[in-house]
Amino acid sequence: MKEYIEQNKERFYDELFSLLRIPSISAKAEHKEDMRRCAERLAVLLMEAGADFAEVSPSDGNPVVYGEKFVDPALKTVLVYGHYDVQPPEPLEKWHTDPFEPVIHDGAIWGRGANDDKGQLFMHIKAFEYLVRTGKLRHNVKFMFEGEEEIGSPNLPAWIRANKKRLAADVCLVSDTTMISEKVPSINCGMRGLSYLEVKVVGPNKDLHSGHYGGAVANPITVLCEMIATLHDEDGRVNVPGFYDKVVELSRADRKMLARAPFDLKEYKEFLDIKDIRGEKGYTTLERTGIRPCLDVCGIWGGYTGEGAKTVLPSEAHAKISMRLVPDQKSGEITKLFAKHFKSIAPKYVKVEVKECEGGDGFLIPISSEAYKAAARAMGEVYGIEPVPSRGGGSIAVLAEVQKILGIDPLLMGFGLERDTIHSPNESYLLKQFFAGMESIALFYKYY
Amino acid sequence: MKEYIEQNKERFYDELFSLLRIPSISAKAEHKEDMRRCAERLAVLLMEAGADFAEVSPSDGNPVVYGEKFVDPALKTVLVYGHYDVQPPEPLEKWHTDPFEPVIHDGAIWGRGANDDKGQLFMHIKAFEYLVRTGKLRHNVKFMFEGEEEIGSPNLPAWIRANKKRLAADVCLVSDTTMISEKVPSINCGMRGLSYLEVKVVGPNKDLHSGHYGGAVANPITVLCEMIATLHDEDGRVNVPGFYDKVVELSRADRKMLARAPFDLKEYKEFLDIKDIRGEKGYTTLERTGIRPCLDVCGIWGGYTGEGAKTVLPSEAHAKISMRLVPDQKSGEITKLFAKHFKSIAPKYVKVEVKECEGGDGFLIPISSEAYKAAARAMGEVYGIEPVPSRGGGSIAVLAEVQKILGIDPLLMGFGLERDTIHSPNESYLLKQFFAGMESIALFYKYY
Repeated sequence: MKEYIEQNKERFYDELFSLLRIPSISAKAEHKEDMRRCAERLAVLLMEAGADFAEVSPSDGNPVVYGEKFVDPALKTVLVYGHYDVQPPEPLEKWHTDPFEPVIHDGAIWGRGANDDKGQLFMHIKAFEYLVRTGKLRHNVKFMFEGEEEIGSPNLPAWIRANKKRLAADVCLVSDTTMISEKVPSINCGMRGLSYLEVKVVGPNKDLHSGHYGGAVANPITVLCEMIATLHDEDGRVNVPGFYDKVVELSRADRKMLARAPFDLKEYKEFLDIKDIRGEKGYTTLERTGIRPCLDVCGIWGGYTGEGAKTVLPSEAHAKISMRLVPDQKSGEITKLFAKHFKSIAPKYVKVEVKECEGGDGFLIPISSEAYKAAARAMGEVYGIEPVPSRGGGSIAVLAEVQKILGIDPLLMGFGLERDTIHSPNESYLLKQFFAGMESIALFYKYY
Repeated sequence: MKEYIEQNKERFYDELFSLLRIPSISAKAEHKEDMRRCAERLAVLLMEAGADFAEVSPSDGNPVVYGEKFVDPALKTVLVYGHYDVQPPEPLEKWHTDPFEPVIHDGAIWGRGANDDKGQLFMHIKAFEYLVRTGKLRHNVKFMFEGEEEIGSPNLPAWIRANKKRLAADVCLVSDTTMISEKVPSINCGMRGLSYLEVKVVGPNKDLHSGHYGGAVANPITVLCEMIATLHDEDGRVNVPGFYDKVVELSRADRKMLARAPFDLKEYKEFLDIKDIRGEKGYTTLERTGIRPCLDVCGIWGGYTGEGAKTVLPSEAHAKISMRLVPDQKSGEITKLFAKHFKSIAPKYVKVEVKECEGGDGFLIPISSEAYKAAARAMGEVYGIEPVPSRGGGSIAVLAEVQKILGIDPLLMGFGLERDTIHSPNESYLLKQFFAGMESIALFYKYY
């Protein structure tokens, strides 16, 4: 496929950039129209690449783009999953270029979605185009691109259930994850689940003058901080009763296998510019993100946050809290456990409200499958090294649902790298990964 | 003066509103031009009221409005202090009307600055006008209106030192405080000092994907919360070493006198809609705000605070922290103590930065002075009840400086009420307090 890429590169950039320019931010209601535009553009790209059929299919939220090419009922069917929605670009002031005006420099594509997941799903469309145009396609291929992954795919499971028949396939192929490093290709064989909540601590019914009331009335920011401070114990464990009840403890053998993945603590700390790491006692960094659950405060706000010194004892304080879950923790159960616990620790001088947001279960993928083997062979050929099986710390909530509803395993051929800083300012995607990904996907079809 | 008010009421509103419409927010650099406009308008109002001379005098920050009327060197001289800057209006969505388009309804003036301090300083201009126009003025009067009170008056002390001679006076008259209640007039005989700092906790050098790093890298929001949670001990005391070293403990007799002020805990809790109060063990609510120091978090922010569920392990978290101080705590010393302590409790996996902001010392005013007695008599006549001496929890940082540099005591004749919610949305000023204030001030001149 190398030659085909060389000949069509400029067109690939133009096509991908037409997707990246659309601010399809699912977290913000004001982008509804952008979601539709992005979905329509994707359907056009699928048709141009050689699909028999592609449509923008309504769901109870943002539309799903569905496309297919049917070759022969005797052949295997590959269902490609991806998402066209992106994370909000904030904080905007930290971007070196416009997040929605992609550019190429330093060997990478820069912009929101360059990697996650527009850049990665685009590789699938182009590998497919290559196979169609060169007459090499020996599979039936189906595409399902959703617009709500970044908000936890609240409506895709229902859409999948409603479209179960036409989604029938042998494997669900996904590129929405990272490799361990540029030099070490890896295939994710597990992802963490997610529980996400928003909490609100309400003190007095209005913002107060901190001189007139300070010292006499509970400050909701202070109370929220005190509550958050109790959410981890001294060993770095999440201090919510029942949180670990269903956590699967890995065997020594399994932990040994994971420990084979290369990891350099010094480089890790340098990359992040931190003096020390922090996490659950008794586990390595890769274990802490791969096989252990955790709790993070993703956002906090309250009181006066503008320029200068406003003296106020505010009425409210807020935080967004996410928990990454491992098998067999159930997102729904953990969300309920947290909500109950957080309300129970509220002191009497404040009111606490808890809003349940997105969630999804984690999952594991067997590395003994034909699909895994084909992917390993394909990537081994492109990279010159056998890929390592790894456990991803992130979540693609809906893939556990795909597993349950369609009865097929996902296969995670991700080509992102940590340096791509997805979800952060200056998201990028290395061109060499972009092209190696296309080649690996084309070879996957060859060996599967 | 009642009749004069009745005859000129509409003009008074128009003049005051011309000040209130100018968003003179000292905390925000973008309002520099509004500060100048507001100062110029004030100088015009002083001249129209009968001053011999009024000017907009430059300082190293926002200009000071200075005006005077000289009657006779044998007479006493009153220096009126006020401030024309206002607090930021945020949160804007909680205002029922435009903060900078004042309106009158329900017997009050509504808008930012209606009370603090444009409404209150305006009473002095009108009481002065009345005395001039009716030929009753028997004092020399000087006006000093600054534009940086809400940011801690960083430049006024230097301006006062530079203008020390022309500011010579017998008393510094100020209306920038509240009365205990509508029914109980009171005169503040002490204010708390202030230390204000902004803190920043930095973890990784960029925002991270909370799935890829969550559980393995310290989250700066969590760390900031944990640090803030240690700032009070179990008895509600501020947990900063040395914080209480210089706090003056009041005698039993003094505490008894303060306890004479009316206070209804049930009403207090209902007014704020809180189930319980919180404060330093061993002190009453009035003591906690009047004679005890405290620490509040005035603002906190970090990570993703927009709509929806963004999963991020942020790079930074921030908070604004204010401490209200009592005699003999020195603002400069306490600010240093806090900064040192906060840095010392930073765990090794984050960097902590502390920025010192505004500050000022608290002060006490003798109730045995002639000026106090004249004010008490004036207010007693207007309200029909002898005013109670009280201790204000707020801070007017610069008045301690006035005391030190000019060697004169401030006299705090404040006519605000808690219901005015200064510093908060829907600031207001009751018309009956507005007019009772003018009358009281005019009578003060009579009896002083």
